[in-house]
Amino acid sequence: MKVKRKDYRTIWMEENLVQMVEQNQLPFQFDIFRSEDYGETARAISNMAVRGAGAIGAAAGFAMAQAFIRFGTNDPKLRRAKAEIESTRPTAQNLFYATNRVFNKGCLSVDEAIREAQAIANEDVESCRKIGEFGESLIKDGFNIETHCNAGWLAFVDYGTALSPVYAAKRKGKDVFVYVDETRPRGQGARLTAWELLNEEIPYTIIPDNAGAYLMSQGKIDMMIVGADRIALNGDVANKIGTLEKAIVAKEFQIPFYVAAPTSTISPSCSSGREIPIEERSEDEVLYQSGIDESGKLRKIMVCSPGSSALNPAFDVTPAHYITGIITEKGIFTPAQIKNLI
Amino acid sequence: MKVKRKDYRTIWMEENLVQMVEQNQLPFQFDIFRSEDYGETARAISNMAVRGAGAIGAAAGFAMAQAFIRFGTNDPKLRRAKAEIESTRPTAQNLFYATNRVFNKGCLSVDEAIREAQAIANEDVESCRKIGEFGESLIKDGFNIETHCNAGWLAFVDYGTALSPVYAAKRKGKDVFVYVDETRPRGQGARLTAWELLNEEIPYTIIPDNAGAYLMSQGKIDMMIVGADRIALNGDVANKIGTLEKAIVAKEFQIPFYVAAPTSTISPSCSSGREIPIEERSEDEVLYQSGIDESGKLRKIMVCSPGSSALNPAFDVTPAHYITGIITEKGIFTPAQIKNLI
Repeated sequence: MKVKRKDYRTIWMEENLVQMVEQNQLPFQFDIFRSEDYGETARAISNMAVRGAGAIGAAAGFAMAQAFIRFGTNDPKLRRAKAEIESTRPTAQNLFYATNRVFNKGCLSVDEAIREAQAIANEDVESCRKIGEFGESLIKDGFNIETHCNAGWLAFVDYGTALSPVYAAKRKGKDVFVYVDETRPRGQGARLTAWELLNEEIPYTIIPDNAGAYLMSQGKIDMMIVGADRIALNGDVANKIGTLEKAIVAKEFQIPFYVAAPTSTISPSCSSGREIPIEERSEDEVLYQSGIDESGKLRKIMVCSPGSSALNPAFDVTPAHYITGIITEKGIFTPAQIKNLI
Repeated sequence: MKVKRKDYRTIWMEENLVQMVEQNQLPFQFDIFRSEDYGETARAISNMAVRGAGAIGAAAGFAMAQAFIRFGTNDPKLRRAKAEIESTRPTAQNLFYATNRVFNKGCLSVDEAIREAQAIANEDVESCRKIGEFGESLIKDGFNIETHCNAGWLAFVDYGTALSPVYAAKRKGKDVFVYVDETRPRGQGARLTAWELLNEEIPYTIIPDNAGAYLMSQGKIDMMIVGADRIALNGDVANKIGTLEKAIVAKEFQIPFYVAAPTSTISPSCSSGREIPIEERSEDEVLYQSGIDESGKLRKIMVCSPGSSALNPAFDVTPAHYITGIITEKGIFTPAQIKNLI
């Protein structure tokens, strides 16, 4: 995708060098972080220079390949390197999937390890591209689309999921406008989705999360597309906190509500959303906000009444009956069809 | 109500001196602003040192009384002073109500003007106190109550509206816990409601606006109470942006959703909510956030991707069928009964 009109992937590897968009600085500064060693790449995952399901998977695969480049095919240090990479974000399913695939090939040859890591990244790109093509068919010329959080290319290697149909519609010459939910507390909509859309030259505006129902009541929203962190076998979807609220109000105003995610997001171990654990994050993400002051300096300020506590559930679960359809790389399905895809 | 365990009203007048809690500094600094002259009091309304329907009405009445103290009962400058006070917040209905009442009495004597201004403030206190008593009957011991924005005593002269039943329940010895919606973009929940509850020693926690539906789905919320900026004759309610969203999700989870407001909030000129105009405010309230840095210095930072636009509708309209009841100083009514109250 494009940054200042130049094409980028979120993460890529050339020779032994892994390069990635430094996401901790976004949207205030655009930098490429370069890592020559598996340990450095692992640290980039843990400190969230790279984030998002697909992008973490690719980073982990590249890190594993870098370990083979360093140690060769048959060194006991390889197992330790694998464990080090896997300890960075232990809940990220794609991470283990990638390290295992690259490790198995790396035992044959270093070149095989590199090829496998590149394949994982390319497959992520291809899945997201197909999600875009399938999802694009739902978007009519002139549509106003609301999205929540960031399920754009920054969370994957390229294209993204929820935003991929929007990018595909634009390439086909359709007029699309995006209402971007701010997505408190971390503001991934106001920061990352807005930054992506600006760079892709797709018209958008940021809205407070509170304004969703109002805009729907005014007939301003034609459809809503969000990503997914995990999909249960019954079609319930875990995604960024606030998704449930949007799905309920969208249904109330009869606005189509779509989830876009690769089939790798389906969790065979969860029969329903009730089994998906909800991560509770630090209250500081609610109590404080970071951003830049007039001089461009990054600062953190307290935005709540001092002495207050806050709750910060990171995700919620949207029951299947609020979801119009799930857009995957294999096509668009109803939530009830999800269990047949794996 | 209490600040650092001492009793205060939001605004009061002793001799010719109007004193008020300086709300622009809250929650980071607690100051009393003192105004000796009607012009200074008028400026305090326009720069929002005092804000909220009831508190603005009281301030306007006191300002009008100060004009009589300065000019006597029969000076042509009185009409100019009245116009000056009325120009501060031209959409605030209570403001005109107060200046007219004090002006009519002031033509008889300066003492009558002062008495009338004090009466307006005392009537506001009495309405809010009664709202608390009626609303308290809805609150069971151990209830968890969610509220949106600030409809506490800071928006009135004392007690407030949505929070008045909570304060009354606490005085009766009931255990109550309040989930405070942050209320982006201006954060009146995280800043003012949280500050009030901390000072009143009522347990609470701040939640991102996005977390409402999630907490309701988990059975954490027993009821929701909000204030109102305007109530149409059919029982539709205009209130802070995000109220509509909460009312819809509360209904979905069968959680009682109450509005608390004095009958003076009912607008005889609006037969339905569709006739209530929605104020669109500056996008800067979404794009920037203010708060204090580590050293306690008040700062403003940009929290969105630079180059973005934002929408900032200040209110939305909640249709009557989402509202369980409206708590007024005359009792608790269904939305359909509202038209009979004026």
